[in-house]
Amino acid sequence: MKVVYSIEDLRKTVQTWRKSGETIALIPTMGALHDGHLSLVSIGRSYCQRTIVTIFVNPTQFGENEDLATYPSDFIQDKKILEKANVDLLFAPSVKEIYPSDFATQISVKGLSQEMCGAIRPGHFEGVATVVTKLFLQALPDTAIFGEKDFQQLQVIRRLTADLNIPVKIISGPTVRDADGLALSSRNSYLSESELKIAPVLYSTLKSAAQAIKANNSNIEHICEGALQSLLTAGFLSVDYFDVRDENTMMTVTKIKGAERIFCAAHLKGARLIDNFKL
Amino acid sequence: MKVVYSIEDLRKTVQTWRKSGETIALIPTMGALHDGHLSLVSIGRSYCQRTIVTIFVNPTQFGENEDLATYPSDFIQDKKILEKANVDLLFAPSVKEIYPSDFATQISVKGLSQEMCGAIRPGHFEGVATVVTKLFLQALPDTAIFGEKDFQQLQVIRRLTADLNIPVKIISGPTVRDADGLALSSRNSYLSESELKIAPVLYSTLKSAAQAIKANNSNIEHICEGALQSLLTAGFLSVDYFDVRDENTMMTVTKIKGAERIFCAAHLKGARLIDNFKL
Repeated sequence: MKVVYSIEDLRKTVQTWRKSGETIALIPTMGALHDGHLSLVSIGRSYCQRTIVTIFVNPTQFGENEDLATYPSDFIQDKKILEKANVDLLFAPSVKEIYPSDFATQISVKGLSQEMCGAIRPGHFEGVATVVTKLFLQALPDTAIFGEKDFQQLQVIRRLTADLNIPVKIISGPTVRDADGLALSSRNSYLSESELKIAPVLYSTLKSAAQAIKANNSNIEHICEGALQSLLTAGFLSVDYFDVRDENTMMTVTKIKGAERIFCAAHLKGARLIDNFKL
Repeated sequence: MKVVYSIEDLRKTVQTWRKSGETIALIPTMGALHDGHLSLVSIGRSYCQRTIVTIFVNPTQFGENEDLATYPSDFIQDKKILEKANVDLLFAPSVKEIYPSDFATQISVKGLSQEMCGAIRPGHFEGVATVVTKLFLQALPDTAIFGEKDFQQLQVIRRLTADLNIPVKIISGPTVRDADGLALSSRNSYLSESELKIAPVLYSTLKSAAQAIKANNSNIEHICEGALQSLLTAGFLSVDYFDVRDENTMMTVTKIKGAERIFCAAHLKGARLIDNFKL
């Protein structure tokens, strides 16, 4: 596996591949890799001949009181994992490589990026949209793979890719879970042993709510409110949202028509957890 | 000359050229073509084997009380002009082709896009930045040519192209002027016969101010204020700005160091005129 740190070196490798007519999949990550990331790499390999993984902890998508400074990082371990997964190229730029001192451009996506995590984390999706656009235009891959765990992020990226006519196909990968149902996340490493026992309740509560909604389609709001309360009872400190939303517009719905997902973001002391799945 | 109206057809032609290894220059315009546009086409031809001209009156860069509805347009005449100039491809998309109903993405450039025309025309440069990014990513040309008459626009485009890592080289073309010095602009067609006699005073006043500044470097603000007053005396109804600015940051300067330009925007009844040149 080749490791490059500059946009110039990334492009050189990509150009070599392009000249031999090879297709390229990009998997952007913030490092601290787990099996969720590796499932995205596998999907990339199934679509394209070459895979690029990027590791960049993007400062502009973190809020002022968020965990930028403590975000988990183990570059040597990540490199080993990606080598074993037969990744062709690891791009690990510095913050200065991505944001030179005179950097001044921002991309925003109205509507769907202002709901849920967008409302709770102002500026987050602008940071995501801008850095993902940059990574796309640096590498110009054929496809890019993103996890459904961050479903709102996935849809924001789909929207901006279509809107800006970026010639990259967006593919999503299903959420990978621990045996107890907890969605894999780099931030799970923040959780204490006792919190790791509470954390899976997020998924089981989503499942229970989904079942109740299927049985009683007209009472979505009431069911979500009850589920939210039961998370607090289970030991979550607060719940940012527990909602059923249209998966394209990210707007709340009052009826299930076939394109809805159930979403939740909830806090333990160690970490804010998010999860979702299709109804 | 081929004429296409859809992004798909544009890309098909571009791909054919790419396969034969040909280089491509893009010249985005809003139509109502004049010799200023044609000079940009010539520059494009000197850099690349193929030239694409786009004609798209971009609604998102017009303010609510601006001239979107009356912006000059003569597609048949424009087509003749471009054919005669040996342009290879004219791309003339509809508003729906560029902005489908679910379009939600906006690009903004902090700092330099908030000065001068950006301060006077809120949202203008966001509209320009977004549509130019789209045209770049639709055509993916090697170079794109923009006129120095719209110098702030040129610098906003340079900034976003660098910031988003768009693989397009930006080239600028010098302002083309009438014999009397008036900078060519599609909006000059709004001017009455009497206004066409006042309009060249904009350039001659910029030249006088530039000479005075060269002679007395320390008194820039005072000289600009005097020049602004003399434009009002000459018959301009109002002056949005008459400033010396750093050509990279677009910030006002108090001393000439070698990278400054003098800028003016002033209103006649028929049209708002802008002009600038390097000091």
